[in-house]
Amino acid sequence: MSVLPKSVEKVIDEFSRLPGVGPKSASRMAYHYLRSPNKDATKLANALIQMEDSVKNCKKCFNVAEEEECNICSSPLRKKDRICVVEEPLDVVAFENSGVYDGVYFVLGGVISPADGITSEELRFKELKNRVQELLSDANTLEVIIATNPSLEGEATASYIYDLFKNLLKEGKLKLTRLAMGLPTGADLEYADRLTLKKALEGRRNI
Amino acid sequence: MSVLPKSVEKVIDEFSRLPGVGPKSASRMAYHYLRSPNKDATKLANALIQMEDSVKNCKKCFNVAEEEECNICSSPLRKKDRICVVEEPLDVVAFENSGVYDGVYFVLGGVISPADGITSEELRFKELKNRVQELLSDANTLEVIIATNPSLEGEATASYIYDLFKNLLKEGKLKLTRLAMGLPTGADLEYADRLTLKKALEGRRNI
Repeated sequence: MSVLPKSVEKVIDEFSRLPGVGPKSASRMAYHYLRSPNKDATKLANALIQMEDSVKNCKKCFNVAEEEECNICSSPLRKKDRICVVEEPLDVVAFENSGVYDGVYFVLGGVISPADGITSEELRFKELKNRVQELLSDANTLEVIIATNPSLEGEATASYIYDLFKNLLKEGKLKLTRLAMGLPTGADLEYADRLTLKKALEGRRNI
Repeated sequence: MSVLPKSVEKVIDEFSRLPGVGPKSASRMAYHYLRSPNKDATKLANALIQMEDSVKNCKKCFNVAEEEECNICSSPLRKKDRICVVEEPLDVVAFENSGVYDGVYFVLGGVISPADGITSEELRFKELKNRVQELLSDANTLEVIIATNPSLEGEATASYIYDLFKNLLKEGKLKLTRLAMGLPTGADLEYADRLTLKKALEGRRNI
């Protein structure tokens, strides 16, 4: 005899698959909907179905989009002489929310991580190469900003991208840059890790 | 120009309403589904709709159920001479998972909390009284175990239940008990709060 009705167990099971959601939180979420009036569960259900039906990848940058091209790639206001290569669509959101970047993006779809069975085959390197060629044919200069995370896998992926464009770089056709590493705003030197301090020292600038 | 497709924003918005889910986690959840293959979002959506369609309250104890009566109330194995009064269905799950109780339950639907605008009117006190009368008519003795949380509101609700059954208690028709308060297993006396220590001392037992 199970304690929970089967349909509730199924919802808890689905919620538990979400990142950062354990069985306890998943139960709390399911019971939230059992308590809430106004058919809130149906609202979430409809939103999910609507999202799955309407969202695709932008054919140029592979960010999420409801059209063939995302809002950013299709905007005439965005500079096409710089392309920022990120791991995931959420990284695009982070840049956009900060309002510090006015170029276009490219979403790789992850990082090379042999431990997780993700090889370069799984990521969009071929598409990245095509996109860079496409932008190069329209612009005089192109900067490829590698914005993978400063993790082991992110660094490995950055090297892979560097190799990918080594020849074009030698030919002087493009510029390859990597996001700066150093102390984050508000950090306390005392608590900074060794690698961050090393990078901050290496990257020190004249004032 | 919004960064996110509208359908994604809608899903994030719905996820943010869940208890303990902030905007960042809600985004991560939505993007999890955008990344995942196998129509996982539809699976959650269908599970939610199925749950909302099939789950109702047990007519006896108001626990969640897919039938008129929940698995516990309808089981001939459960003792009907004790009823454990809890706040929420998840409290029933906690008791059941621990396997320490073999009686029936009653789910109040919350606690009296004037600060949140929840008065005794909103809770199932009338239904509790009826259920207790019903059990009394079948059994020689009945123990009402008050298992509201040891919070201010839980204690106030426990007092209210005591008042509710004061007369029956005087007539010797039932026994009213409250869960023991004291040190939890594995606790460290050094870090126990004053009230817990006080309750542990007050409730000390001969060994």
